Amino acid sequence: MLENVRVVMVETTHPGNIGAAARAMKTMGLADLRLVSPAVYPSAEATARASGAGDVLSAARVCADLDEALEGATLVIGTSARQRRIPWPCLTPRQLSAQLQREPESTRIAVLFGREDRGLTNDELRRCNLHVTVPANPDYGVLNVASAVQLIAYELRLALVGEDADLPEARARREAMPLPEMFWDEPPASNQAVAGFLDHLEQVMTESGFLNPEQPGQVMTRMRRLFLRARPDKMEISILRGTLVAIQKHAARQAADTPRDDEPGTRQR
Amino acid sequence: MLENVRVVMVETTHPGNIGAAARAMKTMGLADLRLVSPAVYPSAEATARASGAGDVLSAARVCADLDEALEGATLVIGTSARQRRIPWPCLTPRQLSAQLQREPESTRIAVLFGREDRGLTNDELRRCNLHVTVPANPDYGVLNVASAVQLIAYELRLALVGEDADLPEARARREAMPLPEMFWDEPPASNQAVAGFLDHLEQVMTESGFLNPEQPGQVMTRMRRLFLRARPDKMEISILRGTLVAIQKHAARQAADTPRDDEPGTRQR
Repeated sequence: MLENVRVVMVETTHPGNIGAAARAMKTMGLADLRLVSPAVYPSAEATARASGAGDVLSAARVCADLDEALEGATLVIGTSARQRRIPWPCLTPRQLSAQLQREPESTRIAVLFGREDRGLTNDELRRCNLHVTVPANPDYGVLNVASAVQLIAYELRLALVGEDADLPEARARREAMPLPEMFWDEPPASNQAVAGFLDHLEQVMTESGFLNPEQPGQVMTRMRRLFLRARPDKMEISILRGTLVAIQKHAARQAADTPRDDEPGTRQR
Repeated sequence: MLENVRVVMVETTHPGNIGAAARAMKTMGLADLRLVSPAVYPSAEATARASGAGDVLSAARVCADLDEALEGATLVIGTSARQRRIPWPCLTPRQLSAQLQREPESTRIAVLFGREDRGLTNDELRRCNLHVTVPANPDYGVLNVASAVQLIAYELRLALVGEDADLPEARARREAMPLPEMFWDEPPASNQAVAGFLDHLEQVMTESGFLNPEQPGQVMTRMRRLFLRARPDKMEISILRGTLVAIQKHAARQAADTPRDDEPGTRQR
């Protein structure tokens, strides 16, 4: 159904935003871009910002007015930073996603994005069936127009294609390794503490001869994955580090052939 | 909890992307930006692209290495376009959102964003507890780094603040006017057909003297909202248009004082 979705950018001022929007669209599988009276188009800046989405950009259709841009659309969605005087049915992007999942395949969707400085006019918003407002910082909710395209396109993709249609690896991992709920009685270790432990572990594994630094293979990668996935707490890392220190001290003592002070039974385990 | 979230950009090449990321962060209520060895910072281009988020940009901390950038973090999330050789626990942004809702308040989150051309290195990805991959077009899934920041920040906001904390109007509307499920036995009218009807309606309301074009008030806005919300089908619009035509013809005949051809009982209703 993504082929039934059109992005309409109204009187965009900066050509870079048009290119960035084309790229955002393509990353989410959208291809139909219409530009109502863009200030500058085509433009080298738009092409540069489009990156690998030059095909979407060059296929964009410049329209003289909104009527031409909305040709054939049956569900028109206006993006708006805030509610105007007369409230309109207004959804969050997630609610829009839920709504679109109920739409028949025949629905022809057009999403309108307004000018960089002042969005869509009231007249333009009144051409819309629905408005969508991105939840944002009340102190500064002004998304860049291409960022807004990215975000809405992402929600449209989730609604119309699904969350992980393209992530078979992720799905396989999830089945194989569900992440546990975490309830800690100790504060979690910092990432640095875990990294420090892993370096220490590698040292001990190397010193022990288990790990050949000339041919390390994937051993440490697997260790990192294990310990990072487990998200150890501070106490656990402290215990692990203490264990490594003890192993090294023990080896040093053995090498020096000094008498051992850790005779069985003399130390608390 | 948003104040416990840090964005870490690693070896960003284009200063414009740093500014755009700062803006994306601020729109979602994030403020803690760390830059590992940026190619150019500070920069006028970054400042321009940051727009109203100059405070986030100028407070960004430049770090010599990843260790400094991850200082104190207890949950490190790496953004990655694809799975590497050794699979890591990998979530979609939405799954990440669900995961973060289960985190204790004390969790210190760092989200890593890699280089424009090649993302994060395997070593960097192996510093992460989790990887997150945005569902994307399998033929072109390369999001701009600032767009990725926008999208992840949006999901973090949804997870940690909630969907419509800042949309009281939307919530009020939703309670007042739940959108119905739509089952059509007729194809939906196009937006243009509805707009054409509304123009026609306005004309008839004006001709009728109901609507004073000098003082239209909010009448047509309310009509637009009504008909767009209702999402009429083609048949309904056809009937409405026919009605308006009939009203106008009737008025014209009355004005001309011609004999009526629509005597009661002679026409099918």
